[in-house]
Amino acid sequence: MTKKILVVNSGSSTLKFKLFELPAEKVLAKGMVDRLGIDHSVFELSYQDQKNKIEQPIKSHEEAVSLLVEQLVKSGIINDIHELAGIGHRVVSGGPFFKDSVVLDETNLNKLAQIDDYAPLHNPAERKGIGAFAKMLPDVPQVAVFDTSFYQNLPKVNQIYSIPKEYTEKFSARRYGAHGTSHTYVTHQAAKFLGVDYDQLRMISLHMGSGVSITAVQNGQAIDTSMGFTPLAGVTMSSRAGDIDTSLVAFLMNKLQINDINEMITILNSQSGLKGISGISPDMRDLIAARDTNPDAQLAIEVFVNRLIKYVGSYLTEMAGVDVMIFTAGMGENNPAIRKSVMEHFAFLGMKVDDQANENGHGARKITTADSKITALVIPTDEELVIAHEFERLVK
Amino acid sequence: MTKKILVVNSGSSTLKFKLFELPAEKVLAKGMVDRLGIDHSVFELSYQDQKNKIEQPIKSHEEAVSLLVEQLVKSGIINDIHELAGIGHRVVSGGPFFKDSVVLDETNLNKLAQIDDYAPLHNPAERKGIGAFAKMLPDVPQVAVFDTSFYQNLPKVNQIYSIPKEYTEKFSARRYGAHGTSHTYVTHQAAKFLGVDYDQLRMISLHMGSGVSITAVQNGQAIDTSMGFTPLAGVTMSSRAGDIDTSLVAFLMNKLQINDINEMITILNSQSGLKGISGISPDMRDLIAARDTNPDAQLAIEVFVNRLIKYVGSYLTEMAGVDVMIFTAGMGENNPAIRKSVMEHFAFLGMKVDDQANENGHGARKITTADSKITALVIPTDEELVIAHEFERLVK
Repeated sequence: MTKKILVVNSGSSTLKFKLFELPAEKVLAKGMVDRLGIDHSVFELSYQDQKNKIEQPIKSHEEAVSLLVEQLVKSGIINDIHELAGIGHRVVSGGPFFKDSVVLDETNLNKLAQIDDYAPLHNPAERKGIGAFAKMLPDVPQVAVFDTSFYQNLPKVNQIYSIPKEYTEKFSARRYGAHGTSHTYVTHQAAKFLGVDYDQLRMISLHMGSGVSITAVQNGQAIDTSMGFTPLAGVTMSSRAGDIDTSLVAFLMNKLQINDINEMITILNSQSGLKGISGISPDMRDLIAARDTNPDAQLAIEVFVNRLIKYVGSYLTEMAGVDVMIFTAGMGENNPAIRKSVMEHFAFLGMKVDDQANENGHGARKITTADSKITALVIPTDEELVIAHEFERLVK
Repeated sequence: MTKKILVVNSGSSTLKFKLFELPAEKVLAKGMVDRLGIDHSVFELSYQDQKNKIEQPIKSHEEAVSLLVEQLVKSGIINDIHELAGIGHRVVSGGPFFKDSVVLDETNLNKLAQIDDYAPLHNPAERKGIGAFAKMLPDVPQVAVFDTSFYQNLPKVNQIYSIPKEYTEKFSARRYGAHGTSHTYVTHQAAKFLGVDYDQLRMISLHMGSGVSITAVQNGQAIDTSMGFTPLAGVTMSSRAGDIDTSLVAFLMNKLQINDINEMITILNSQSGLKGISGISPDMRDLIAARDTNPDAQLAIEVFVNRLIKYVGSYLTEMAGVDVMIFTAGMGENNPAIRKSVMEHFAFLGMKVDDQANENGHGARKITTADSKITALVIPTDEELVIAHEFERLVK
């Protein structure tokens, strides 16, 4: 039986959606509400060869959901709301409670409300989206799919921080990771692409969007990942600092006369990374365009690649080698220069870039030569599709 | 001409010293004042086959210096204070001002007083020691040798943090590193031991005392190091946390109702690391003794090794390989089990441990087999000797 499943990713001022028909994996419509709750709100909907854009005040997540449903019906994508099998939500953190995707019944909604502080930048906004659908469409089942689920079984050694053990235990303070939905998708696709059993491959996947994370998979399990307790940690990202000495945070708070660490964390999340180093842009494309004349842009690119190759180097050490590297998400899929800069660092282990495939190929493909000792693949990610399938698995 | 140089390492409640005669590199005496400024103060002095211990109140660094000089004369190690060519002090951070060792004239003493916040745990205590000698022995020249000097020429990419560039520039916020005096000594000794030019070797040195740091040396320069803005960052240490997600720090402050980040930093410096994970001891020997019956001790050991091998893996990636690994300081020199756990991880790169040399050898030696693709050495460190030579270089 075919099912129509709406996949939603809510931010504090955005609501992105994609409507799938399963099992065909057909995308019936997609779009987003942008500038939600602020000025110049805009609703965009694409379906078939049609693209609608509506500019009107959209003051809340509830108004966004009303408009979305109204437009899905009005444009004939669905006849009425009962055609929707349900909603699948992306949720960044499952915190200590959720090891796997769940149906959002009252119990789970209550639990979800208790773990905002495990991803303070993401979970509260996602709960707003979930709450809006629950209010506007109370009879439609909702499912939450967590970015952290893929990391439930990290080896203990990579879960814990070197902090007093009572904090680790009492507060469930651990490496939760993020981007798990993407990493699980692309690593499984990679195994399929290569025709090798998933648990036979040592894989390192590099999800390089505006958030960037690296995950190592061995024996069919995620064994390490660069994001930490929250998505702030790890490599340099578009506007996030990644790893930083806590003493430097204290030093900067003192110099800047900031008393609340959360203010510093906002700076580390939104004013740092490529944007902070370069002073011009969080977007790698801008930096590449500027690199020849702007030394700060060049430095930002070098730092970005340096942090990536160091994490990859540490993960291949943990696994005593690596069979496959996977590049995915915005930069991973569309930036051959950055991919090449990363891969070239592993020439000393016999990695050989296939320049033609790297620069001119499209879609899922191999970008190393036949005799390369490490295989690299580009695999376009599709977190929404994973979420749709998770919905289908949980709601029969 | 022979010179007698006193090398001093001051802490907030300790003052360690070693009296050298150059150029013979002879240690005439060594010892420490312990529990300085608190109860049960004790002064210990070793020379020739003699060991003196004095228990009396020692209330200040000045009192410690008086007692030290008095005892050096009384025991006949020196005839009077004018026999001392001068004092060489270990100072953790040179901050943005000091790129190299300096004579502590008034200008430099004033500058030194301005950089406490670049190593708040160390520099203020070291300045107390320096101040005490300046007061008690105003005519004796003093030199400061900085842990950070070895890292002055880190490549920019490894100096900077991914924070807003105005902070990097305005506040000289960078990776300063630490343990530089030790790393420079053991890497130079390693090159001598192997009979290879210093700038021809890719080296990774592991200084594993109660503080632990890893430094990569290539083309005759330190190119990366695990300690950061301060010695808090990097790998897991005896009681220091090493790297941690800043968001976790904020989360813990909230849970523990701590408002001042410096309180958290004290916890991360003194209650974390091996001590924090195991809950029993900061000392690796205790953990190894307990590992078979105490899973937390076992976990602490595993985390310790895991963080080491990940840093080593990232550094050998930066250098496209490594020729030599060097183990030094307390654990590095005396703990064959930990050395072996680290080295075994690099079997995939052709590293082969010489068990006999690793377990039963003494002093500076090679601990890998003749056919090992990576050479490992144990090199006992001697920061005090470096400091004595730095004094000699600067004070003619």
